[in-house]
Amino acid sequence: MTIENGYLVCDGMHIIGAYQELPEQFRDAQIIDYKDRLIIPGLCDLHTHAPQFAFRALGSDLELLDWLEKYTFPEESKYSNLDYARKAYDVFVNAIRHSATTRACIFATLHSPATVTLMEKLEQTGIVSYVGKVAMDRNCPDILRQESAQAAYVSTKQWIRNTKDRFKNTKPIITPRFIPTCSDELMYRLKELQEEFSLPVQSHLSENKDEIAWVSDLHPHCHTYSHAYEHFGLFGGERTPTVMAHCVWCDDEEIELMKKNQVFVAHCSQSNFNLASGIAPIRKYMTNGVNVGLGSDVAGGSHLSIFRAMSDTVQASKLYWRLIDQNDAALTLNEAFYLGTEGGGRFFGKVGSFKSGYEFDAVVIDDSNIPTTNPLTIEERLARIIYCSDDSNVHAKYVRGEKVL
Amino acid sequence: MTIENGYLVCDGMHIIGAYQELPEQFRDAQIIDYKDRLIIPGLCDLHTHAPQFAFRALGSDLELLDWLEKYTFPEESKYSNLDYARKAYDVFVNAIRHSATTRACIFATLHSPATVTLMEKLEQTGIVSYVGKVAMDRNCPDILRQESAQAAYVSTKQWIRNTKDRFKNTKPIITPRFIPTCSDELMYRLKELQEEFSLPVQSHLSENKDEIAWVSDLHPHCHTYSHAYEHFGLFGGERTPTVMAHCVWCDDEEIELMKKNQVFVAHCSQSNFNLASGIAPIRKYMTNGVNVGLGSDVAGGSHLSIFRAMSDTVQASKLYWRLIDQNDAALTLNEAFYLGTEGGGRFFGKVGSFKSGYEFDAVVIDDSNIPTTNPLTIEERLARIIYCSDDSNVHAKYVRGEKVL
Repeated sequence: MTIENGYLVCDGMHIIGAYQELPEQFRDAQIIDYKDRLIIPGLCDLHTHAPQFAFRALGSDLELLDWLEKYTFPEESKYSNLDYARKAYDVFVNAIRHSATTRACIFATLHSPATVTLMEKLEQTGIVSYVGKVAMDRNCPDILRQESAQAAYVSTKQWIRNTKDRFKNTKPIITPRFIPTCSDELMYRLKELQEEFSLPVQSHLSENKDEIAWVSDLHPHCHTYSHAYEHFGLFGGERTPTVMAHCVWCDDEEIELMKKNQVFVAHCSQSNFNLASGIAPIRKYMTNGVNVGLGSDVAGGSHLSIFRAMSDTVQASKLYWRLIDQNDAALTLNEAFYLGTEGGGRFFGKVGSFKSGYEFDAVVIDDSNIPTTNPLTIEERLARIIYCSDDSNVHAKYVRGEKVL
Repeated sequence: MTIENGYLVCDGMHIIGAYQELPEQFRDAQIIDYKDRLIIPGLCDLHTHAPQFAFRALGSDLELLDWLEKYTFPEESKYSNLDYARKAYDVFVNAIRHSATTRACIFATLHSPATVTLMEKLEQTGIVSYVGKVAMDRNCPDILRQESAQAAYVSTKQWIRNTKDRFKNTKPIITPRFIPTCSDELMYRLKELQEEFSLPVQSHLSENKDEIAWVSDLHPHCHTYSHAYEHFGLFGGERTPTVMAHCVWCDDEEIELMKKNQVFVAHCSQSNFNLASGIAPIRKYMTNGVNVGLGSDVAGGSHLSIFRAMSDTVQASKLYWRLIDQNDAALTLNEAFYLGTEGGGRFFGKVGSFKSGYEFDAVVIDDSNIPTTNPLTIEERLARIIYCSDDSNVHAKYVRGEKVL
């Protein structure tokens, strides 16, 4: 729904309502007039890697496992150096600050000091985020391997204690990198921490076919990748809010489990293109009542923009329909917009919409530099913003009622 | 091949060579120092529609034939009004002027005055282009249908006479829209004009499955879409340089014919995503010796950038490999860069490379605002430019030795 020249009323942190005419009881309220600009809900990035921003667009000729070895792990190892981390996270945080994103789920590295630094910097942006110190104790270079599950447990627990009440908007999240890099013991210990501190969980699921075969070898007792997470109690459920990135190749049984456990799928179509992973069956997830949001997945994706993720999502769904299954209709642009706002926002509560009672996250877009010669409807202007805008079009940004940009 | 801190020597219009050290005989030549910036061959856009720029990003929920009816034809009909055309072509020409594109094959509309206006404006950019007054006399709204093949012939001939020697860089090209909108008689008359004036040809081929079925109904005597063009003598050959946009679904027999006739494929992956057309088998074309370049295909594509076309091409080829045929390896970024420069440039002669004797088309890119914390090789900087730059990174542009931006 769109309202032209309307009023969006909030009581500080929450939306009261969106109106064509200002209701009488708000006549005395302070009004900020954004004139002809568009006001939209803030965008939600359900999956990205802060330390990978430095090498976005590189290594695009590789698939996931080789790309991890050649680019990701060497880069992430640098974050043991806090000076490097400060410099690199400044670059990432500056980028996300100026984007239209108001909420994010972010992977850091396994290094506690660098991860705290990232959280400090993110807090200053006003963006609401979950940040994960990554856990991994096998199948990775020595320099990035925690020495034992016990050591990972201890340092993760210390990091959680250090950060869980320290920031208003930036919170820790349990973050096993993915099954192949986490021993059984580490997974059990992470579950302990998840329960002890009532934290949400983020990880990767079913991105690449070689990865899936590897998980199957590592966990022959679990008949799907999803069930491997479920085995350790790290696959959603009422007290374990969980977001899983990718979910490109999940089967019907996994879909049922995701729905039952209210797992969120972070759909990262650009990354799935770049790493030749495939196309996730998003229409099927939506039809089956699975929660779906969008992720930029930098540096699998090269762009932090969730507008770009929306247009990529529509394109991916069209190719899915054309090339894989004509029973799954392509997503409309409106549906992709929903996924990039409320779809992902629901992981954060009542977020991503201007419905009454939702948290007031909003982005003001100035599209006056995207030229046309035709009169445009609001929906058409939004389409052009999704396909053709960049951060320079972000005129103002509000998170939880506070103006942050 | 890349040269760091080297010298690119030209004699005005042509490249003499690229050198690490400046050869002795050029010691007295004028030197322009672009310092740490990258100098690359100009980009070639083998297929775009100038009148569609005004509605780029709109109608993305439709497939080709519906999209033509709902968006394209109504917009193109406006170009009967020369005032509107002037305004709208200003917007398009301003955009292509500031892009990294130095060569282009461009569709206008069927309106002669508007098409001449477009050519006048393009000439002022310094870009070298072929511009087509579109021919169509059936299966389109009355307002866009030429009244007869004879009328189309007469007006096209007049337009060719009026423009063929009028501009240095802007030349006419024979442009049947596509088989469904051109009667047999019109096609024969266009062939006459092509021969009389020795002009190249541009059209669309095999973009969408419904379109292909339609062509098959219209020309049951031609056993492929390509053979329908061949039937009228408008499908390449030594004296009929031809570029065909899309070629998503061409079969082996068509590939053979394209190779034999040296037809250029204008690969428009973004448009093929947006209109749910599919993925063209570019690796197969390259392996079989078919000429391939890249096209932005605005407004099927939403972006004029051929850098974007390069990254889209790599992504498309990865999905082709993953989802359609694992015998056709994904394109590397280097290969996509070749397609967007020399691959398409060959349609214009010795263009798109810094090899000795090539025409001096060059773009100077300033990538200093794409932040990183790592030292980068030239190849890595180029990758980031392809994935992450925009027109603001175009620092200077040369076409045929003249500085045009």
